[in-house]
Amino acid sequence: MTDKLDKVLETLDANSESALARLMELLKIPSISTNPAHDNDCVCAAQWCAATLTQIGFDASVRPTTGQPMVVGHYHVEGGNAPHMLFYGHYDVQPPEPLDEWDSPPFEPVLKEDPDNGTIISARGASDDKGQLMTFLEACRAWMSAAGGLPLSITVMLEGEEESGSPSLKPFLDANKDELKRDYALVCDTGQWDASTPAITTLLRGMCSCEVVITGPSRDLHSGLYGGVARNPIRVLTNILGAMHDENGGVQIEGFYDDVQPISAEQREQWKALPFDPSDFLGRVGLTAPAGEGNFTALEQLWSRPTAEINGIIGGYTGPGTKTVIPSIASAKLTFRLVPGQDPQKIADGFKAFVEKRLPDDCSAEFLGERGSPAVSFDISAPIFLKAAQALEEEWDKPAVFMGCGGSIPIVESFKTELGMDALLIGFGTDDNRIHSPNEKYNLSSFQKGARSWARILEKLAAL
Amino acid sequence: MTDKLDKVLETLDANSESALARLMELLKIPSISTNPAHDNDCVCAAQWCAATLTQIGFDASVRPTTGQPMVVGHYHVEGGNAPHMLFYGHYDVQPPEPLDEWDSPPFEPVLKEDPDNGTIISARGASDDKGQLMTFLEACRAWMSAAGGLPLSITVMLEGEEESGSPSLKPFLDANKDELKRDYALVCDTGQWDASTPAITTLLRGMCSCEVVITGPSRDLHSGLYGGVARNPIRVLTNILGAMHDENGGVQIEGFYDDVQPISAEQREQWKALPFDPSDFLGRVGLTAPAGEGNFTALEQLWSRPTAEINGIIGGYTGPGTKTVIPSIASAKLTFRLVPGQDPQKIADGFKAFVEKRLPDDCSAEFLGERGSPAVSFDISAPIFLKAAQALEEEWDKPAVFMGCGGSIPIVESFKTELGMDALLIGFGTDDNRIHSPNEKYNLSSFQKGARSWARILEKLAAL
Repeated sequence: MTDKLDKVLETLDANSESALARLMELLKIPSISTNPAHDNDCVCAAQWCAATLTQIGFDASVRPTTGQPMVVGHYHVEGGNAPHMLFYGHYDVQPPEPLDEWDSPPFEPVLKEDPDNGTIISARGASDDKGQLMTFLEACRAWMSAAGGLPLSITVMLEGEEESGSPSLKPFLDANKDELKRDYALVCDTGQWDASTPAITTLLRGMCSCEVVITGPSRDLHSGLYGGVARNPIRVLTNILGAMHDENGGVQIEGFYDDVQPISAEQREQWKALPFDPSDFLGRVGLTAPAGEGNFTALEQLWSRPTAEINGIIGGYTGPGTKTVIPSIASAKLTFRLVPGQDPQKIADGFKAFVEKRLPDDCSAEFLGERGSPAVSFDISAPIFLKAAQALEEEWDKPAVFMGCGGSIPIVESFKTELGMDALLIGFGTDDNRIHSPNEKYNLSSFQKGARSWARILEKLAAL
Repeated sequence: MTDKLDKVLETLDANSESALARLMELLKIPSISTNPAHDNDCVCAAQWCAATLTQIGFDASVRPTTGQPMVVGHYHVEGGNAPHMLFYGHYDVQPPEPLDEWDSPPFEPVLKEDPDNGTIISARGASDDKGQLMTFLEACRAWMSAAGGLPLSITVMLEGEEESGSPSLKPFLDANKDELKRDYALVCDTGQWDASTPAITTLLRGMCSCEVVITGPSRDLHSGLYGGVARNPIRVLTNILGAMHDENGGVQIEGFYDDVQPISAEQREQWKALPFDPSDFLGRVGLTAPAGEGNFTALEQLWSRPTAEINGIIGGYTGPGTKTVIPSIASAKLTFRLVPGQDPQKIADGFKAFVEKRLPDDCSAEFLGERGSPAVSFDISAPIFLKAAQALEEEWDKPAVFMGCGGSIPIVESFKTELGMDALLIGFGTDDNRIHSPNEKYNLSSFQKGARSWARILEKLAAL
């Protein structure tokens, strides 16, 4: 370890309380990008981020888009051969509902003691992604104050629409290519292998989302006066969606698996060698057995197989008591997770054809909010992956795992296709963080060791 | 026509404006029995009804139950051989949701001009059942004022839980048998054959209702991090409910049709002779073809075949935008319409077995709010049916149709089994009244000619 890095790490440890206080400030802002009622909160979070970057020493500003604003900050190191990095994080968060399942209010962050994780930070966004992005900003702050500057040039870009499909992202990248195209992207929005084992994510599933609305009668009907003779759109919707998977968990949409690139035998063996117990992974959420395709292991189902999930369904009367109604409409929201080779548009079209083929008389289907991004995988033999893995091993005293991720981070695909940049995906989340669920948390140790990890990584990357 | 009846009818015509004003008062009370937030409004409606009965000349009071109160009023004619009647109506109404589909607020009744129906009364409950029950009370009021009293003894019972399954009804009938057991029940909660043709309903489907809640993971999960491997309860629910009907509309629950008593060939022929055009009936609600069992006519599907309808379904995220969630639970509300011979408990048990048989690993099903009442049919050769039909024909200048009804009026079955009373079901609703839907209405002519019809019926029944 260099003297400089030593001082940076000491500074991080010495200032851990003020770092935590800054994260708590950000967590108090309910920057829910999917709900227009919170648009002002998103602007407020963006302003907070820009002010924080400026305070650290970046040349930062809030940048308007047609949706939630972007935050961009620059720090330039004159001369030298170090690569220039683009750091990416997102300041927006998922809706907190259902509110009554939170033990403490989602936007009143608090520290709690947890039997498995020591001190935890409880709040919406604690892990996804405010806690994670702040590990990077705190590492930068420590470099600035302990070493007088960053060891390499860094551009920071913080998005406010990651949880709502990033509609403004591609136009923004297009319009600002020169400013944002750097040598590599650094992304802090993923997890570790486990709480004590760091990881670099090198394979991300893509996603295609869509909503289907089935309309039957022109108005709600009385189920006694019309029942049996009138077409019920809930029945039609359940009939169609209920046929989407076979008994083995396979998706029945025509052509769904056509373009799936199978993983290599080598990759398969590497994953099989990982200490992963599906019953332990599922046991933590009250389940016992993998529910996906039976001829794949649980890790393969999660990292390398596409899915069709119904994320929401609604139709008819859902209040207290009963209402004998045949509703006019019923609808469902779906997301498809995609693997390398699959084209989101082709999957969306396949789903539409699947629905339309099964529509009975007197029903129509409307498809709304369709969006998609393909899966991404990287060549892990590149030096940047090896250097970063080395830095992680020095902080955690354990080799870093190269892993896949079932989730989708569309930005990573955009960086690749729009700006020709590969991304280094390093995050400190753990599987029990309940992201997108009530009682989301981030381990205090993830936050503190995450910042220390980035401090080390920055030094290694400066020597690339 | 007798002089007395003549005067009663004249009085009804002369006082039609004040009668309408009284109905409007009742329609302003949002007595929604399925929603506990409206319990006070139900009490208020009951008090209004009791006060109105007292004003007419009944000995009336509000009677507590464990749920919404009953209203009971008595009028006794000394001597004579006329039968003693029990009139039944209900003062509670369906929830008005979705509110944004109403052209005027549901509890601010207004008169409107309608191209098909002349003047209409628009409000929740205008037809079901406030407008209907008021036809009877206005007929009684006119008899009292024009003839000095009613032509026969009448007990009035108005319920406040008809729209929420009548949980207090049987205990109330049991506890007050002597007070409520009369020679016949008169019920005003049904429809006419069409706007110009009166009808007596002699066959009512029964009903069995139940809610199923499917639980998968112990908490909501991220569909990226868990998708493919975690059991999704929406997928399980759609898969099970989607298999409940075959392609021909038949219900696949084991034993569902076992006890169905087929209608007689004679009845079938009589129904076939009725001027009923399914494409016209369905066309009014935006549909073209009957969706029920293909080997039965539309009228048979409506009046003599059982159904399984999903009235509501909900699970996961249903707000604006998307949320990549695998929810912990998903649920649906169902009602089964039953025909003579079917036992509600057996149907409920069959549904439970159907669900449980199809539950995959890691899912549980809970069944809530189960309730039921069997179907009812009457011997239409009894003199009371013939006398009532004669009175209707005199008012409407057309023979009354003896018809079936797809809906359920559990009280009618209770009158039969608990009190040994047959019921005369006469109502003045029309198919386009949108009961249980936004913009419910009652034709002003239904209200006025309905009251005149009851005035005539009371005279005929006094001579039974």
